[in-house]
Amino acid sequence: MKLLILHGPNLNLSGQRETLYGSETMEDINELLRRHAEQEGVELRFVQSNHEGTLIDELHRARADGFDGVIFNPGGLTFYSYALRDALTAVDLATVEVHLSNLHQREAFRHHSILAAVCVGQVMGFRGQSYVLGLQGLIGFLRDKAGGA
Amino acid sequence: MKLLILHGPNLNLSGQRETLYGSETMEDINELLRRHAEQEGVELRFVQSNHEGTLIDELHRARADGFDGVIFNPGGLTFYSYALRDALTAVDLATVEVHLSNLHQREAFRHHSILAAVCVGQVMGFRGQSYVLGLQGLIGFLRDKAGGA
Amino acid sequence: MKLLILHGPNLNLSGQRETLYGSETMEDINELLRRHAEQEGVELRFVQSNHEGTLIDELHRARADGFDGVIFNPGGLTFYSYALRDALTAVDLATVEVHLSNLHQREAFRHHSILAAVCVGQVMGFRGQSYVLGLQGLIGFLRDKAGGA
Amino acid sequence: MKLLILHGPNLNLSGQRETLYGSETMEDINELLRRHAEQEGVELRFVQSNHEGTLIDELHRARADGFDGVIFNPGGLTFYSYALRDALTAVDLATVEVHLSNLHQREAFRHHSILAAVCVGQVMGFRGQSYVLGLQGLIGFLRDKAGGA
Amino acid sequence: MKLLILHGPNLNLSGQRETLYGSETMEDINELLRRHAEQEGVELRFVQSNHEGTLIDELHRARADGFDGVIFNPGGLTFYSYALRDALTAVDLATVEVHLSNLHQREAFRHHSILAAVCVGQVMGFRGQSYVLGLQGLIGFLRDKAGGA
Amino acid sequence: MKLLILHGPNLNLSGQRETLYGSETMEDINELLRRHAEQEGVELRFVQSNHEGTLIDELHRARADGFDGVIFNPGGLTFYSYALRDALTAVDLATVEVHLSNLHQREAFRHHSILAAVCVGQVMGFRGQSYVLGLQGLIGFLRDKAGGA
Amino acid sequence: MKLLILHGPNLNLSGQRETLYGSETMEDINELLRRHAEQEGVELRFVQSNHEGTLIDELHRARADGFDGVIFNPGGLTFYSYALRDALTAVDLATVEVHLSNLHQREAFRHHSILAAVCVGQVMGFRGQSYVLGLQGLIGFLRDKAGGA
Amino acid sequence: MKLLILHGPNLNLSGQRETLYGSETMEDINELLRRHAEQEGVELRFVQSNHEGTLIDELHRARADGFDGVIFNPGGLTFYSYALRDALTAVDLATVEVHLSNLHQREAFRHHSILAAVCVGQVMGFRGQSYVLGLQGLIGFLRDKAGGA
Amino acid sequence: MKLLILHGPNLNLSGQRETLYGSETMEDINELLRRHAEQEGVELRFVQSNHEGTLIDELHRARADGFDGVIFNPGGLTFYSYALRDALTAVDLATVEVHLSNLHQREAFRHHSILAAVCVGQVMGFRGQSYVLGLQGLIGFLRDKAGGA
Amino acid sequence: MKLLILHGPNLNLSGQRETLYGSETMEDINELLRRHAEQEGVELRFVQSNHEGTLIDELHRARADGFDGVIFNPGGLTFYSYALRDALTAVDLATVEVHLSNLHQREAFRHHSILAAVCVGQVMGFRGQSYVLGLQGLIGFLRDKAGGA
Amino acid sequence: MKLLILHGPNLNLSGQRETLYGSETMEDINELLRRHAEQEGVELRFVQSNHEGTLIDELHRARADGFDGVIFNPGGLTFYSYALRDALTAVDLATVEVHLSNLHQREAFRHHSILAAVCVGQVMGFRGQSYVLGLQGLIGFLRDKAGGA
Amino acid sequence: MKLLILHGPNLNLSGQRETLYGSETMEDINELLRRHAEQEGVELRFVQSNHEGTLIDELHRARADGFDGVIFNPGGLTFYSYALRDALTAVDLATVEVHLSNLHQREAFRHHSILAAVCVGQVMGFRGQSYVLGLQGLIGFLRDKAGGA
Repeated sequence: MKLLILHGPNLNLSGQRETLYGSETMEDINELLRRHAEQEGVELRFVQSNHEGTLIDELHRARADGFDGVIFNPGGLTFYSYALRDALTAVDLATVEVHLSNLHQREAFRHHSILAAVCVGQVMGFRGQSYVLGLQGLIGFLRDKAGGA
Repeated sequence: MKLLILHGPNLNLSGQRETLYGSETMEDINELLRRHAEQEGVELRFVQSNHEGTLIDELHRARADGFDGVIFNPGGLTFYSYALRDALTAVDLATVEVHLSNLHQREAFRHHSILAAVCVGQVMGFRGQSYVLGLQGLIGFLRDKAGGA
Repeated sequence: MKLLILHGPNLNLSGQRETLYGSETMEDINELLRRHAEQEGVELRFVQSNHEGTLIDELHRARADGFDGVIFNPGGLTFYSYALRDALTAVDLATVEVHLSNLHQREAFRHHSILAAVCVGQVMGFRGQSYVLGLQGLIGFLRDKAGGA
Repeated sequence: MKLLILHGPNLNLSGQRETLYGSETMEDINELLRRHAEQEGVELRFVQSNHEGTLIDELHRARADGFDGVIFNPGGLTFYSYALRDALTAVDLATVEVHLSNLHQREAFRHHSILAAVCVGQVMGFRGQSYVLGLQGLIGFLRDKAGGA
Repeated sequence: MKLLILHGPNLNLSGQRETLYGSETMEDINELLRRHAEQEGVELRFVQSNHEGTLIDELHRARADGFDGVIFNPGGLTFYSYALRDALTAVDLATVEVHLSNLHQREAFRHHSILAAVCVGQVMGFRGQSYVLGLQGLIGFLRDKAGGA
Repeated sequence: MKLLILHGPNLNLSGQRETLYGSETMEDINELLRRHAEQEGVELRFVQSNHEGTLIDELHRARADGFDGVIFNPGGLTFYSYALRDALTAVDLATVEVHLSNLHQREAFRHHSILAAVCVGQVMGFRGQSYVLGLQGLIGFLRDKAGGA
Repeated sequence: MKLLILHGPNLNLSGQRETLYGSETMEDINELLRRHAEQEGVELRFVQSNHEGTLIDELHRARADGFDGVIFNPGGLTFYSYALRDALTAVDLATVEVHLSNLHQREAFRHHSILAAVCVGQVMGFRGQSYVLGLQGLIGFLRDKAGGA
Repeated sequence: MKLLILHGPNLNLSGQRETLYGSETMEDINELLRRHAEQEGVELRFVQSNHEGTLIDELHRARADGFDGVIFNPGGLTFYSYALRDALTAVDLATVEVHLSNLHQREAFRHHSILAAVCVGQVMGFRGQSYVLGLQGLIGFLRDKAGGA
Repeated sequence: MKLLILHGPNLNLSGQRETLYGSETMEDINELLRRHAEQEGVELRFVQSNHEGTLIDELHRARADGFDGVIFNPGGLTFYSYALRDALTAVDLATVEVHLSNLHQREAFRHHSILAAVCVGQVMGFRGQSYVLGLQGLIGFLRDKAGGA
Repeated sequence: MKLLILHGPNLNLSGQRETLYGSETMEDINELLRRHAEQEGVELRFVQSNHEGTLIDELHRARADGFDGVIFNPGGLTFYSYALRDALTAVDLATVEVHLSNLHQREAFRHHSILAAVCVGQVMGFRGQSYVLGLQGLIGFLRDKAGGA
Repeated sequence: MKLLILHGPNLNLSGQRETLYGSETMEDINELLRRHAEQEGVELRFVQSNHEGTLIDELHRARADGFDGVIFNPGGLTFYSYALRDALTAVDLATVEVHLSNLHQREAFRHHSILAAVCVGQVMGFRGQSYVLGLQGLIGFLRDKAGGA
Repeated sequence: MKLLILHGPNLNLSGQRETLYGSETMEDINELLRRHAEQEGVELRFVQSNHEGTLIDELHRARADGFDGVIFNPGGLTFYSYALRDALTAVDLATVEVHLSNLHQREAFRHHSILAAVCVGQVMGFRGQSYVLGLQGLIGFLRDKAGGA
């Protein structure tokens, strides 16, 4: 099983200043995921970009390379990038949307994700642990599907 | 650590007919949670009710009994029960909102949870596994808090 | 054929004061239905409750008891009870929504029923006769279905 | 008692192809109504038109001819014809709005009838039987009114 | 100067029952206009129709016949007939919109005329006198225009 | 019969520069009204103010002085002054709202008058003539009322 | 004079933690009311429930027992319980809506009470004193009514 | 303790005609307040104006003169005067908003006060008594604050 | 292959005055279409009407006569005629919606066609050429369908 | 070059208490402007008023006195005073809208200025310096215009 | 004549899986266009990018290189990219917006193109043929313009 | 003091054609800023990009390089780029939003900047001078902050 860990805009700055997302850096989160993936025998690819176009290109590449799923934190693009939404539909990879913070406790514009409808599920509010829970959920989902559930 | 597993209206019927929520019954899900909680050394109380008032009463009781947190699937009440929202605020227990299906793939009225803003986080779309991921997230959150994070 | 006649909040007070619903009491209406059902050889169960949770419990019980359909006047719950809507979907019993008054002649919040979309049909504006027409419609619908229409 | 059965745009095509309205043709429905009316000793006039103006003219004519009420399926005009609404108010004939399908299960624009507020009541979702139920309701309403209720 | 007096749907019934429009019939109003027009040396053509299409045809005809302007009471079409709006634009005749009642004292849907923006002006609330005031205003407008104002 | 001619904010500048309102000054308009009133044997009082409070005071004064009605051009206050609306209701004088331009051809915020619902009628789009038509309409309305119509 | 003091969901927890509602418990508030009622010679019944249905039942019971009015703090139900609204209309008891906090300083969903329109009046923002002021207002209202005012 | 009683536009006409506000004049209400204030040893200043600007000036003057609070009936300004809202914030005097009628039973535009969010609380629906209840509430609030509550 | 060219309200006036639609008359456009159809061996029927009802009748007739598709410029009916929408659904003929101008450069009400969702496609902005492009698109679509694509 | 510095409601209180606008008083700001204007050889007139009507009068007076432009902080009137908007249009003086705070960081009702569309430009968020920057911008604008740019 | 064929995000994946867009690949579509352009003696440049910024850069480059027009399928950017809209305005090249599917048959967010208002016209719903029709329309438009139409 | 001058999409084309932004090119504006910065002893870095991602990268780089603030014209991204908004929050550099034109005089979608709430202030409408005024404002803001204001 090969999975893409996709970090959207500004997530490269996570944890560099004490914020509402906690003090974990993106590298700390990736390390957590790497350890979990090893136990599960799953291969991960890590990508971060501030460019919507690059995120789309990477989704296309993951599909071309036979990936099975995506853990995706789309950052601010969550709220308007219909181009990313189309990319998720086009590559047809099982995707879990994750967020460090609980979006519903923040500004009103963050209360509606335009990407959620084309994802398997959503996990938010657990800081870096959101990614790990999302990864577990995705692995379970893919094994169920493979198992014919 | 003592946690309440709170199932809202109609969840007692889960899995009785083959639906979009999968074939797991509420008892199957409770069993999964029980096993996970045992490993973690966590005590669980299970409650299901179709009555908004009973759900509120149970939240009050959990607080009175010194519980630490709640895994809550509010069912259809997710979309209008401001009385439940006030209960969550009043008891001040760390709560994780979980849903079997991905609400964003269903009718528009399901796209906005009025309870999410007073919860720690949200997990949805992984069928019965949503509860387990929520439980893990909640335990992690409570341990972090206890540890001073 | 077994059918549930379900009266929602405040319908126990119908006809006690001269109102826009007319002077028929709930018992008057039930009597009309009883007479019609007898002619049709249909068995009726009558329930009234001011509790949303009890109405949901009764829908679950009707399903467990092998009922075929429901005549439902949801009263004020018509406009917000997504928990009832989920119950109607979960029990999957053919349901007809009835109202004593013509909701479209009253306050704007009464112009949209959130339950109608999960019912077979709607009858409103004929006072107690709305129930009888709904019953006839439901019996016809169930006989057509049984007959393979 | 003289009643107008008024079919709006496109109802002349009902049942010609197997649709969500069922396989009954307009003539089948008229025949059902004719039989029911005979039993009740009620005189019916049948009109169908795809022209909003003709429907208005016919309402005016029914009033001039001393009709007592109208069974009206306004088809697509249900959602915008304020001219028809004014006609219903101007002729002041008791009118029942009927629809073959349950409008609340279809596109959002069909969820609000602008004519309902000037009608006695609404019946929808029972295919051709909607008309018959509406006719019964209307006769009952007119007899009650005549009887001083 | 030749002017079209155009009465929309249901205005043929004005004054036949005592209503909020007063007791003047359409013929009474036409008589008032005729007398005023005579004094001013203006020729009038009177048309009433319940058919949107006929009203459009008549506007086209007025243009073809070299008319100078229109007094138009569009009745219920005021609120949705973009086809009439396009007709007014296409024939490019100076038009005054008149209403018997004060629309702003009635249902909310009557508070916005979609035709007003393509008219010279609006007069409403003076019952039959609305037409006469509109006629005076239109004659003044056309004489000003002719005079180069 | 005593009538108040009430000019709202900025109408003192009418006609000073060539604008969409035409080249008539407020004094020109008052002169037109004066002439018309003389013919009709009606007494007029003229007031202009840029102060909402003064306009309210003047309405109160007109009532105290036994006036019969008001011709009112509220200028920009048309769109928000609920205090003026309350004043019109409180003094209970028959009022006609007039505007120089056709508001429906201008910015969207001008398409809804919050004062219209408490006036007898509206006249707009005829430049200075709007006032004269409004005056005629008001006199007619008051004579009808006096005559018991 | 017999009055019902009706506390809605979560008000049993008032004052148990230092909150924006102040430190008064429900029992403290009831005590204040009891003292005030004694001075006025008014009989009070105290009820609290987290169940919408029970609150409706209690309103019905108060009517059956000949009560004169209600002081009602509907808690979170203020914003959606049309069933409670119907109950208030059905029992036709003079009701005053009270709130501990000023709802207009809190979340947007709290700015509109759907119950207010069927109450005599509203008092909010004075913590426990809101109830006492409401009680005074209600007694005054009922004495005025009794006195024929 | 010095308090300002501030009456907004049109309140000088209260009670002059039999209205929904009752038959009390502004002077009647002031007299009630005067009596109550005397008992409480509180000094009152009474101001009424139809001018938004004057109301703002008076709030500034009250602050300059060391007043402690305000009872304010803003009349029609309640619904749009952000300038008054800013004045209330700027002078930072504890203010209670009062209304004679229950605004929620009247036109929709009266259902939202833009001033409420910067006041201590609201009292409405008790005619002249609304002011007295507001005064009591304000005195209680100020004494609590002074007492350190 | 037989196709209906259907021109809605006011299109009979196209090109008679120099407008934003260009100087082509309806007859010019029909001639262009005729020439193109001849080359393609396609039979055309041309209809124009200002009557919504006639347009519906013509769609019914085209179906009865075995037509294969429709090129439809609905004019102002594009924005509200749900009766036409139902006609398009009922006759189930492949339809292409065409407009002379680019609707998105005009008034806001023209930005949403309620008919587009039941058409194969849309072509707008190319004046008379819009029809020709639509015809080519429709022929291609029908040949693909016939060819099993 | 003669410019009007126009301060709207409540700006006379600026800086009197430590607020989000900073500690500068209106007089401090005027002094800054005076110094800047002297360097530029520009004449300033300073006006503050809490009265919308006075602000309109002053704009009219500035025009009558041959002023060239206006620096305007409309305070709370920014959000609703269409009368002021009309005044700015009527006097046709180049106007710059300035605000001490960044309105977009405050309540939602402050995010849209209804005056901005009739001004040259906007400067906000720089406390007293906003006025100075606005003054510089206005002088530049007027010199460009004079220079034929 | 030199034209840019601009494919937006995800169009490089067209036809790779059997989708609602049909089975044509982007290369298939380009080949169709190439053949058509050759016949017309028109030069084409083909660009596809998933990067909004690159699409803007390419529009700028086309302008610098003296291109005459653009066939543009903006993909998901159609619904939010005001930066692209500004680019189209800035380069001032005649542009035709094309879409493979009929957007009006898909999710609501696809029903409004924010780019359409700055294009010559729109063609949608004909799969790959949409581009060819758009190309024909654009060539016709440019020849008309060149010919002085 | 080091400041970033950040030009968003399409600003590289400013002034190349005579537009509503005036005839200044981006280089002209940069030159103005350079001169002003020299006088103030401030270091500037100039960046323009049509790529949202590049603008985010540059904000990150400015932070890494110890910059103090940003003058930012986000072009069309002003209206939807929540990714840019997050970047501004993440880098926490004092930012002034500038625009050449007065956005409030243009299309409605330009009336609300989603970035303004995370900026110090806004300057718009002064063409190239907007940048210079913004720069002055920013320098003043930073000096005040450094000085402890």
